[in-house]
Amino acid sequence: MKNDNLSMLCDFYEFTMSNGYFKNDFYKKNVYFDVFFRKVPDNGGFAISAGLEQVIEYIKDLHFNEEDIEFLRSKEIFDERFLDYLKNFKFSGDIYAVPEGTPIFPNEPVMTIRAPAIEAQLIETFILLTLNHQTLIATKANRIVRAAQGRAVIEFGSRRAQGISGAVDGARAAYIGGCAGTACTLTDELYGVPAGGTMAHSWIQMFESEYDAFKAYCELYPDNPTLLVDTYNTLKSGIPNAIKVFKEVLVPQGKNEFSIRLDSGDISYLSKKARKMLDDAGLKSCKITASNALDEYLIRDLMMQGAKIDTFGVGERLITSASSPVLGGVYKLVAVENEIGEIVPKIKVSENTTKITNPHFKKVYRYFDNESGKAIADELCVYDETIDNSVPHTIFDPNATWKTKTITDFTAKELLVTVFKNGECVYESPSIQEIAEYCKGQIELLWDEVKRFENPHTYYVDLSKKLYEIKNILLNVYGV
Amino acid sequence: MKNDNLSMLCDFYEFTMSNGYFKNDFYKKNVYFDVFFRKVPDNGGFAISAGLEQVIEYIKDLHFNEEDIEFLRSKEIFDERFLDYLKNFKFSGDIYAVPEGTPIFPNEPVMTIRAPAIEAQLIETFILLTLNHQTLIATKANRIVRAAQGRAVIEFGSRRAQGISGAVDGARAAYIGGCAGTACTLTDELYGVPAGGTMAHSWIQMFESEYDAFKAYCELYPDNPTLLVDTYNTLKSGIPNAIKVFKEVLVPQGKNEFSIRLDSGDISYLSKKARKMLDDAGLKSCKITASNALDEYLIRDLMMQGAKIDTFGVGERLITSASSPVLGGVYKLVAVENEIGEIVPKIKVSENTTKITNPHFKKVYRYFDNESGKAIADELCVYDETIDNSVPHTIFDPNATWKTKTITDFTAKELLVTVFKNGECVYESPSIQEIAEYCKGQIELLWDEVKRFENPHTYYVDLSKKLYEIKNILLNVYGV
Repeated sequence: MKNDNLSMLCDFYEFTMSNGYFKNDFYKKNVYFDVFFRKVPDNGGFAISAGLEQVIEYIKDLHFNEEDIEFLRSKEIFDERFLDYLKNFKFSGDIYAVPEGTPIFPNEPVMTIRAPAIEAQLIETFILLTLNHQTLIATKANRIVRAAQGRAVIEFGSRRAQGISGAVDGARAAYIGGCAGTACTLTDELYGVPAGGTMAHSWIQMFESEYDAFKAYCELYPDNPTLLVDTYNTLKSGIPNAIKVFKEVLVPQGKNEFSIRLDSGDISYLSKKARKMLDDAGLKSCKITASNALDEYLIRDLMMQGAKIDTFGVGERLITSASSPVLGGVYKLVAVENEIGEIVPKIKVSENTTKITNPHFKKVYRYFDNESGKAIADELCVYDETIDNSVPHTIFDPNATWKTKTITDFTAKELLVTVFKNGECVYESPSIQEIAEYCKGQIELLWDEVKRFENPHTYYVDLSKKLYEIKNILLNVYGV
Repeated sequence: MKNDNLSMLCDFYEFTMSNGYFKNDFYKKNVYFDVFFRKVPDNGGFAISAGLEQVIEYIKDLHFNEEDIEFLRSKEIFDERFLDYLKNFKFSGDIYAVPEGTPIFPNEPVMTIRAPAIEAQLIETFILLTLNHQTLIATKANRIVRAAQGRAVIEFGSRRAQGISGAVDGARAAYIGGCAGTACTLTDELYGVPAGGTMAHSWIQMFESEYDAFKAYCELYPDNPTLLVDTYNTLKSGIPNAIKVFKEVLVPQGKNEFSIRLDSGDISYLSKKARKMLDDAGLKSCKITASNALDEYLIRDLMMQGAKIDTFGVGERLITSASSPVLGGVYKLVAVENEIGEIVPKIKVSENTTKITNPHFKKVYRYFDNESGKAIADELCVYDETIDNSVPHTIFDPNATWKTKTITDFTAKELLVTVFKNGECVYESPSIQEIAEYCKGQIELLWDEVKRFENPHTYYVDLSKKLYEIKNILLNVYGV
């Protein structure tokens, strides 16, 4: 893409509305927006938060240059004073967000923005697209990684990604979700996600024979090479040639780290045959990588069938989350500040009850059982509530208020942390390795029932009594 | 994203292979790669080529800077002379491609690269991801546009796109496929795709009442405003308030271009009710826009049910091609030049016959029937063949050679045009409007049978007799 300004990656209506807020003097009015989603991709039990670091970079860089202003002026609908205001535009508000790598659930805020109306409005599109995209891919990657039961999963999908950042930022998100590495070199250079790779079919075709190609490769890269064995015939040619070259070139050097890659045919059958051929040749240390239209379902089946695979390379179905390619995160106004600075909660009603928003400036608590360490429930509270974990605490299902649960001996942890305060970034992003480690640890705190691929247990996301009552009052005022 | 160098958006194995080509002195050897895909998304009858302009920009800018070289050096596997070679790297080869907006079919080259091995290898990932992504979205958009039968379709999906270029370049591709515009401001600024938009629910919520919000909007934007009518209750509140404001603010000014937008509930039912309410109020000129999880299937059903919709806003299901989110374009070696400059065809065989490649440096002809003007078939020929359309020409199905067809009174058109020659771009990209117009015209030249959404007629993509024979010889040499 050209040297563009991402501040312009913005739905056009954000500008028409902002111009209107300016004219109506709302531009100094602080408002509160929540980012949340309603449905976990693939009907899973949870999603994994990702993309915050790119949102932070974007907010820091937020500006409109002369060229952008001129472009907007050419539309002939914007007030000159509004365009003037955009010239010095910078973000002056507060942002609270769930750290990357945190398991998140439907209908809870994963980010809250408090800012003057125009500022909060103009950042909507970019925030949503970034969090929606990376959260989607981190979530999908984690499903695939869990299916592989400890075997390494490498992200391979750049060429089938939906555009540049689909590849580059997608590979970053996949690493947060648990992938061991990526094929995408730029993701390594930019973000420190380890990139690797060895050969395509073209390498083999470029030489006079498959044997020559393998030999040249192992001579050049004697440390842990992976030979692609399906260019001509996996069992009759590829594996025999690989065995020959490993024995001729690597074994005499005392090397025992090398592998083959299966990229077509029936992976279960071929991996068992390959394992036997390698073992029979005395190459028990040789590992087997498989890649070819894999996802969590196919990997689960391969594992059940005892396929002899050490590493999975996963491409298009991961990098596009192909079986569920959209995360529908939304950005909803939940409160405004009035003239004297009071926070006035706002609601969006709908005939579809699942689309009714949770109003107000909120906190989110996650409760952990002290005995098992596991996460029990999340609770949305009004911003000024505090939870005393020294006394039993009763939570209830907001959709069936008679379903209550009293928790004792628990730890309450606030999910949202302060990222921007008065326009200044006050959050230090962890390294990508720290985020991936944190993610792994947090998922271990979820009950297995929440982690099922199909029909998982619905984790509790409840409302505090106070928030529930405020919501009901608003529903009675604005309800249908 | 940071100020990155897209030349590094490259699978790591392209570098390991290139380093090997360098060591093995293949770097001066010219090779030929074809880009093609095997399956049309959504099981449709054709795809629409898109993304060439971004490939051209990328090729022109191809380079490795000091930082990139240093990054590669840190991997400790690359030869210093290879890294030195990368410092002055630029593309010196030829590229032939199908112009954007052209209907394309499985197994025919849509781009052919002739270049020294390293150059051809290092550009694989970016070319594939760009063509795969934009072709996918242009194809999906065209399906949706055809379902809408002449009603305008606007692309609305930035917030649910898979990353930055998923949104920005996706909206460009959607326009090529026939969308009338986008919500993405940056796509307008960068590419000239008209962006538009009016208001979100937050606009309504920001005011004391829905009426106030509508009134403020129409006063500010009296030319063709669209009011979002579902914030509280579409039929009881939204439409009555819109009618009131149109009559109070716009009608007295003599304005009769305005519309409402339905964004939730049953669009078929609500649009009919809305139409009647507007007509009864004397606002027959008021248009109705619908948006809410639409795609070609839902739009087709809405049309069949007589929904009263003038414009469709289509978001996540278009911008991610949600029902078929991957186009599996591949990049395969088809020939190499030997020491004396002869072109030696290469093949990739597979146990799966559909994965066997069509070897050799090729031309693609599309044959049009002179009487109807319609496209009859495509034929892949060896680069040095020419078609004489003054004599009857017999084509045959390469998978069933007894199926032949003799065409007379036809025009033969070469599909691939020269884009780069000896590293210089010799192609002038048309404007985005010209591409969209060309696309529309080309689709009119396809038979309706090829355009069915489900189970379309398979358009013929045949091999010339000469190419078929070369392929068979290679299959006999390398076959399984």
